[in-house]
Amino acid sequence: MSLKSKGINAERELVHAFWALGWPCIRVAGSGSSRYPSPDVLAGNSDRMVAIECKVTKEKKKYFPKKEIEDLLKFSELFGAEPWVAIKFQGVGWFFLSLDDLEVTPSSFVASLDLAKRKGLLTEELVGIFKGNV
Amino acid sequence: MSLKSKGINAERELVHAFWALGWPCIRVAGSGSSRYPSPDVLAGNSDRMVAIECKVTKEKKKYFPKKEIEDLLKFSELFGAEPWVAIKFQGVGWFFLSLDDLEVTPSSFVASLDLAKRKGLLTEELVGIFKGNV
Repeated sequence: MSLKSKGINAERELVHAFWALGWPCIRVAGSGSSRYPSPDVLAGNSDRMVAIECKVTKEKKKYFPKKEIEDLLKFSELFGAEPWVAIKFQGVGWFFLSLDDLEVTPSSFVASLDLAKRKGLLTEELVGIFKGNV
Repeated sequence: MSLKSKGINAERELVHAFWALGWPCIRVAGSGSSRYPSPDVLAGNSDRMVAIECKVTKEKKKYFPKKEIEDLLKFSELFGAEPWVAIKFQGVGWFFLSLDDLEVTPSSFVASLDLAKRKGLLTEELVGIFKGNV
């Protein structure tokens, strides 16, 4: 399976997960190639909305180019959404991280599996926050 | 050009138009084929958001299957967006219509060019509403 297909499949997993929890969720068309800043996935309701950049990895560390995160921030501010990254560590599962929790290098933001386990939220916990339960 | 390509090009025109007016706007991936209700385009900011079903036509009348409009309504309610349809009458331009302004048949909602000219909003007018100027 191509990297692109893997990415799309991962985004679809998130879409199903959010809808299953009762939140409308869509994938953004051409999010990696658009001239405008845009996230991979949007989910939420009339109270709150999240803009999500998604990654899948077999490794124990995932890098986000700085521009990708800057674009996510820019879009989120304009659109009135919360910026999040979602990383699927293959064989482990999905973790949602706020941008403040990412580690910073000169050219990238980084999330390690260890960091994700310590600070990341599971989908249910992200939903919990939305429902005001956390 | 295929019908699908024409549709995508039309959606891209809207994306450019909204960004040019300062509103973040995205196309929804797989909006016509997803198992979940979803619009073609989302635009807005932290104050308001619009979910848009887009059509292009060479004719003077455009039909929307009832299910398409019902899905648009359902998505919009859950997502906290206003439902709109946008029709590009080729050679004339884009018109935005609220669902209440569409004509109803047993199986469809219908917008004629005449109706669009009488009740439709231009992109600038839709923006005007958002800015509270109309």
